[in-house]
Amino acid sequence: MRMCDLILKKKRGEELDTKEIRFMIRGYTDGSIPDYQMSAMAMAICFNGMSRRETADLTLAMRDSGEVLDLSGIRGIKVDKHSTGGVGDKTSLALAPLVASLGVPVAKMSGRGLGHTGGTIDKLACFPGFTTSLSAETFVRNVNTVGIAIAGQTASLAPADKKLYALRDVTGTVDQMSLIASSIMSKKLASGSDAIVLDVKTGNGAFMKRYEDAVALAEEMVSIGTLAGKKTAAVITGMDQPLGFAVGNSLEVIEAIDTLCGRGPEDFKEVVFALGAKMLVFAGRAADEAEAVRLMEGAIADGSALKKLAEFVEAQGGDAAPVYDTSLLPIADKTFIVRAPKDGYVNRILAEEVGTACMQLGGGRENKDSEIDLSVGILLKKKNGDAVTAGEPLAVLYGRDEGKLRAAADRVQAAYEIGRERRKPDPVIYRSIDG
Amino acid sequence: MRMCDLILKKKRGEELDTKEIRFMIRGYTDGSIPDYQMSAMAMAICFNGMSRRETADLTLAMRDSGEVLDLSGIRGIKVDKHSTGGVGDKTSLALAPLVASLGVPVAKMSGRGLGHTGGTIDKLACFPGFTTSLSAETFVRNVNTVGIAIAGQTASLAPADKKLYALRDVTGTVDQMSLIASSIMSKKLASGSDAIVLDVKTGNGAFMKRYEDAVALAEEMVSIGTLAGKKTAAVITGMDQPLGFAVGNSLEVIEAIDTLCGRGPEDFKEVVFALGAKMLVFAGRAADEAEAVRLMEGAIADGSALKKLAEFVEAQGGDAAPVYDTSLLPIADKTFIVRAPKDGYVNRILAEEVGTACMQLGGGRENKDSEIDLSVGILLKKKNGDAVTAGEPLAVLYGRDEGKLRAAADRVQAAYEIGRERRKPDPVIYRSIDG
Repeated sequence: MRMCDLILKKKRGEELDTKEIRFMIRGYTDGSIPDYQMSAMAMAICFNGMSRRETADLTLAMRDSGEVLDLSGIRGIKVDKHSTGGVGDKTSLALAPLVASLGVPVAKMSGRGLGHTGGTIDKLACFPGFTTSLSAETFVRNVNTVGIAIAGQTASLAPADKKLYALRDVTGTVDQMSLIASSIMSKKLASGSDAIVLDVKTGNGAFMKRYEDAVALAEEMVSIGTLAGKKTAAVITGMDQPLGFAVGNSLEVIEAIDTLCGRGPEDFKEVVFALGAKMLVFAGRAADEAEAVRLMEGAIADGSALKKLAEFVEAQGGDAAPVYDTSLLPIADKTFIVRAPKDGYVNRILAEEVGTACMQLGGGRENKDSEIDLSVGILLKKKNGDAVTAGEPLAVLYGRDEGKLRAAADRVQAAYEIGRERRKPDPVIYRSIDG
Repeated sequence: MRMCDLILKKKRGEELDTKEIRFMIRGYTDGSIPDYQMSAMAMAICFNGMSRRETADLTLAMRDSGEVLDLSGIRGIKVDKHSTGGVGDKTSLALAPLVASLGVPVAKMSGRGLGHTGGTIDKLACFPGFTTSLSAETFVRNVNTVGIAIAGQTASLAPADKKLYALRDVTGTVDQMSLIASSIMSKKLASGSDAIVLDVKTGNGAFMKRYEDAVALAEEMVSIGTLAGKKTAAVITGMDQPLGFAVGNSLEVIEAIDTLCGRGPEDFKEVVFALGAKMLVFAGRAADEAEAVRLMEGAIADGSALKKLAEFVEAQGGDAAPVYDTSLLPIADKTFIVRAPKDGYVNRILAEEVGTACMQLGGGRENKDSEIDLSVGILLKKKNGDAVTAGEPLAVLYGRDEGKLRAAADRVQAAYEIGRERRKPDPVIYRSIDG
């Protein structure tokens, strides 16, 4: 079998069979197939697509390119959750302790963030001493005793995906549905959970800007997960404005804690509950989503969800004091208030622009070697549908540098679209897709 | 400017501007743009094509990636000739001395062959002592005194094309019109001639199997040459069977010599004259093609074309005796006769299969390090349209190894299609395309 022939086959629009896809991924992983052939293949896939079967084969081949975690030492049904990413997306921070407090084991591998803010692991660094470098034994023991453990993703999981993803990033082949779906799912399937719940975001701040694309990606991933023998479901959620009010690492941790205390933003709570409901049902903890929601309301009301967060932080070496006193979390001392230029209604907030403003303040990584400043960020005061009067605060920016604050403020200002008529905000939860 | 953005632009189907194409080729030549980006670009070009303007820009950028020869030291109008390649294509061997004998300077850079037989340079090695390693001074002096010089192509001509061609070969991106046209023309334009005549072959043994594709390629190349300020013309010639009767290095040299003696195969002579006529007109040696043909008939009849071949061989250190006594040329001693399996008419000879049979005998390079056996080959006895009776010889194979001869004979046998009804053979000269 020759890679060049496989490229020609895909270029002609034909389907690659299972053996061919396995040959390709094995060769790419061991280096016998060079980057320049793989990038030509990726481009041919961008034009001619892949069938459901090919996409599943690609996913499984990438899953099998490295270690596949064995979580059988953990009792109970392990449910993993993945988000396609958005601005202000602190969902895992609230969701993980919430479902863990209800007895659903959370055994999560998480990556570092590259973008507007840090990833879950970066945000957890707000708790002094917190570590995600756990031995396999500690990881399993923590889930069994505390109910939750989050570890940094090891390089040994789906190495083919890591290599291919880096290649796609520089060869203009990122935005292809089958390649995106197989990239996400290969890592999830290698992570050893029993079921997978996917948060697929759509809107101006999401990777999938168009609703139909988000649905197609969700369907593709649910199909792959189901074919691989895992219960899989997806929820399509809105990213037409940042999620919640907080964008930035410490600010988002505070908002997650507020949510576990029952005083979080409504839209954020909706997303957490929609995903949590599926996780509880998959884990057999609730008979249906309505029951799951009642259980989650209870875990928040009686403080057990918040307590679980504190236990989890301590179990991974962190100081849990900020869980009960968020004023202990680092917040930059300089602020800048962005004000409404006129009377009207907030009709749109370009989420990506707000995210970029946060990165400009130092809150995100521009490249993989950047240091993240946990203390900076943006707190929105007005969201879609809100009435504003001229001069009223739209958002408060927290930063360390006047110049950067001013530049970021201009960007946030421009991200707000104020109209004379009120436009009905887009939904937070669009629909769910079940396997 | 970032290569990734250029890839995305082409992927969206947009035109790259001149600066972008120059940036891409400069970066690819100096190594700052890696193979994996260039192969993704080549694949995007396969799907979305390039405009005439883009193709011309690509050609000129590749021409300028290395040395551009200055042939101003050579008197007269230099006309270069290029063939897209076929089986039994010994055209240059007869054409170069023929037009040189009529006073048209031939200053040719030629590559080694990779395929069924060797290239022109390999074939000239049939003359003991012949060399193509000429200094620039000797090259120019020989053209001025003898009227003809053929040198091996230096690595310094169009290095971007060499690199890109090697990449396309292993990434399934060979068969794209603009990439093919720019590859050929960048080398021709760097070779410093004043005018270019192209032999674009079509048919089962040609790179362009379909007539329309051959016409499109010819038009593309003529357009590029004209845009670059060179008189350029193309002739579309048939390759639905091998050209002439001889396939193999020594055998083809003999056939070229026979043609210069006035006893060559009709189809081969037609091709030589069609190309030669354009060269003589471009060089100002003939007022029109009819006059050019009369001149060429004369140069063959009075022996001056054959004499020019001998002078040329001697000027480059070769022993010219075989020019006057072809029995001195090396011919393998074992033969195998392929016979007609039934009565009928030759309706098709799969030229590529005959070429592959020649390569199997040792007459061509399977890879760039293969040694060529000049003495082996195939002499066709019957061609399209000929009547045959069962048992009559179709072809004679010359080789050194019984096993290889037998295998090659099976292939040649299968290449012949004998039908009950006579099918009118395809034309040798389809049409010409002038700039």
